[in-house]
Amino acid sequence: MTISPSLLEKLGPIVGDRGLLTGEDVAARSCDPFLHLPPGSPVIVRPASTEELSRVLALCHASGQRVVTHGGCTGVVGGAMAGPADIVISLERMNRVLEVDPIGMTMTVEAGVPVEVAQNAAAEHGLFYPIDLGSKGTATIGGTIATNAGGNRVIRWGMTRQNVSGLEAVLADGTVVSQLNRFLKNNTGYDLKQLFIGSEGTLGIVTKAVLKLVAAPTTQKVAFVSVPGFAAVLDLLVRARRMPQLSAFEAMWQDYYALVANHDPSRRPVSPDQPFYVLIEAMGYDEAEDDRVFTTFLEEAFEAGLIADAVSAQSAKQAADLWRVRESSEILVREMGPFVSFDISVDVRRADAFVEAVRAALKERFGAFRSVAFGHLGDSNLHIGVHIGADTREREHEIEACVYGTLRAFGGALTAEHGVGTAKRAFLPDFVTPGAFGTMRTIRQALDPVGLLNREVLFR
Amino acid sequence: MTISPSLLEKLGPIVGDRGLLTGEDVAARSCDPFLHLPPGSPVIVRPASTEELSRVLALCHASGQRVVTHGGCTGVVGGAMAGPADIVISLERMNRVLEVDPIGMTMTVEAGVPVEVAQNAAAEHGLFYPIDLGSKGTATIGGTIATNAGGNRVIRWGMTRQNVSGLEAVLADGTVVSQLNRFLKNNTGYDLKQLFIGSEGTLGIVTKAVLKLVAAPTTQKVAFVSVPGFAAVLDLLVRARRMPQLSAFEAMWQDYYALVANHDPSRRPVSPDQPFYVLIEAMGYDEAEDDRVFTTFLEEAFEAGLIADAVSAQSAKQAADLWRVRESSEILVREMGPFVSFDISVDVRRADAFVEAVRAALKERFGAFRSVAFGHLGDSNLHIGVHIGADTREREHEIEACVYGTLRAFGGALTAEHGVGTAKRAFLPDFVTPGAFGTMRTIRQALDPVGLLNREVLFR
Repeated sequence: MTISPSLLEKLGPIVGDRGLLTGEDVAARSCDPFLHLPPGSPVIVRPASTEELSRVLALCHASGQRVVTHGGCTGVVGGAMAGPADIVISLERMNRVLEVDPIGMTMTVEAGVPVEVAQNAAAEHGLFYPIDLGSKGTATIGGTIATNAGGNRVIRWGMTRQNVSGLEAVLADGTVVSQLNRFLKNNTGYDLKQLFIGSEGTLGIVTKAVLKLVAAPTTQKVAFVSVPGFAAVLDLLVRARRMPQLSAFEAMWQDYYALVANHDPSRRPVSPDQPFYVLIEAMGYDEAEDDRVFTTFLEEAFEAGLIADAVSAQSAKQAADLWRVRESSEILVREMGPFVSFDISVDVRRADAFVEAVRAALKERFGAFRSVAFGHLGDSNLHIGVHIGADTREREHEIEACVYGTLRAFGGALTAEHGVGTAKRAFLPDFVTPGAFGTMRTIRQALDPVGLLNREVLFR
Repeated sequence: MTISPSLLEKLGPIVGDRGLLTGEDVAARSCDPFLHLPPGSPVIVRPASTEELSRVLALCHASGQRVVTHGGCTGVVGGAMAGPADIVISLERMNRVLEVDPIGMTMTVEAGVPVEVAQNAAAEHGLFYPIDLGSKGTATIGGTIATNAGGNRVIRWGMTRQNVSGLEAVLADGTVVSQLNRFLKNNTGYDLKQLFIGSEGTLGIVTKAVLKLVAAPTTQKVAFVSVPGFAAVLDLLVRARRMPQLSAFEAMWQDYYALVANHDPSRRPVSPDQPFYVLIEAMGYDEAEDDRVFTTFLEEAFEAGLIADAVSAQSAKQAADLWRVRESSEILVREMGPFVSFDISVDVRRADAFVEAVRAALKERFGAFRSVAFGHLGDSNLHIGVHIGADTREREHEIEACVYGTLRAFGGALTAEHGVGTAKRAFLPDFVTPGAFGTMRTIRQALDPVGLLNREVLFR
């Protein structure tokens, strides 16, 4: 399958010269944030407006032309992979911040705006867009909406879904669906934006969004603590959630922390002699009050025996340093060699039992292995990295089957925040009920009957 | 159109004697919370389980039998109205609290559980289900999910949509769609629950839900203030939102407050001599801290000239008394005679300009009239009551056309929290774009192709 030359000829007049990339310009791009994997597609179409995109899609629809949508291409589940039969549509020229409403606390943006640009535009008005990702400089608002991105502060402000008020999207046939709602409350018919959020570009292409903003926090308290057991971690979580200021509760198992702390002395705030480590962050609006609340929380937890050792940041620099312990993926990449990574949700009460069960299953299946466990425990979200040797990449599917088999037995979720993409598609039917899976097919069929949008993503 | 006798005969064996109501048992019911309006239907079917409901719907689907679903029947937009051609399905026998998870902070319930029962079950574990409605003793979890109910504390915890983690629903053909997700983060395929939340029973019947709970607040600060102008109200809102404890920001216009204060001396906390009144509530977890934060907020607002007069509750009794000022619908009913009520969202910056424009439009159209304005201003949500004389009921549609015409010019939303039901159906096409309306039809057609579920609701 290739792309019809007559279709390619018709695209130019719609999007103009700047709107079409071919040849070396395509080869220079990547569909993956870590590996250089250029799209196999002969062309990248870059519409400058919703109207242009609508015309492009209407044309593709009439020709049965498949489309893969690109935001910032920072996703890690292969959602941006495109082959020779696909046209890539990039939203990168739709990158304007259209409006900030400081009283209604919303921001209207085009889908190609990077998350960090949106954050900065909010900050100019004393406001805050809470979605925070390592890739925020590149990840776009449209891409994070399509994948319902999460990140570090979900425990306080929710996933991307909870931070989007209105949306405009274009369906596979070019129909523009505009619901640029700005209101916290709006029950005027179906809330169609929910269809597009987290559907990984399979139901429509997001073109604009109204984001919910919050008053920009002016205080940040961060502590890094070691914890003597998992019951204590849970108790700490319950107590931490009684601080309205709580903005992150990030857990690290001994295997993760020891690896990081032993390889980088600047990331060793406490001795690596306990089974668990937690980074706790609180953000608020009153330095004296927030300091009191946070200090009281730590003191009471210490007195209750929940904390073995603790370091509390005394400056923004120290806070950033503590966060670096939690965000050490480059150390994992360097020290663990090839590894398969997992992004799952599991009943927080059984999170440690699950980690133990995974280790047991890996040991039984592969003999020697290395693993690390860490994640947004306050959100029930764990990340696990598994290395079984030099052939880890080749045996990726075997490792996945092993971990996901254990996960099913624990009633967990296949993916917490990364999404399914093409990488986890094979496992999706194991994690949804037949009625739900059938309904997903019904919805996709209704909105994209020819199957043109991100065809290889989620399911076919 | 009537119901086929052979269909009725088949229902009994599925739901049993207790599961069928006919005759006087039907006539004793009402589809409306204020008027006695029994369903015109000859039968109310009361399944005791998802399986029974699935079999009932499969049977109805095979016979082309229309269905109207009943929760607590507290909705005010005619969503529960049923005629002789409808079978009413009530979820009242599916009323069990199935599980409370105090660590994961979720509760799994059947759809017929009243909101207050769920709240009480949460409270037993030191937890809190934040959706708070006047009708909570009767309104059910299923009904509030189907209508995406709002209420008083949306500014802090969001609408019902934000407080539901997982859902089970039955489609028109009897298919059970189960996604009883418990996790804050779960991107495992489409988030189907979003389809059912707020779709007013047109896409499926909710049977079970996993609710998100929060740590039960242990402190409540309430103040009632008079405000010299609308700019000051907005400034007060911006400042109030910097309290993480903020749980309500309820505004009352002079017309509303003067009516209430002049008719009930127990609801006159401040002199009715200012153009605006605001009830501000903050809930938290630390008495000393929360008191300090709230007092500082009030003092600074007073010094900045934003507050003319203020009363701060010194006890739970006083807090409840202040809330009674805001919840005086029985006084409105008594003193304003018949009135048409509106539940709209509008750009908060222009909320007062909108109220003024409505008054001008009503005056031009009807000459003499009375109106009151109040609402959840922190959520952009206003309620307006309009009385034009003894013929207010007869001329309801004229009044609506007048107010909604003004609302459209302001870019407002037809309904903030009450929904469309049958009562506002005529105006829905004016408030959604053609592409969005077409997509709503596509979705409904895909999930209920024969058009059996709440057929008169939203659109046909």
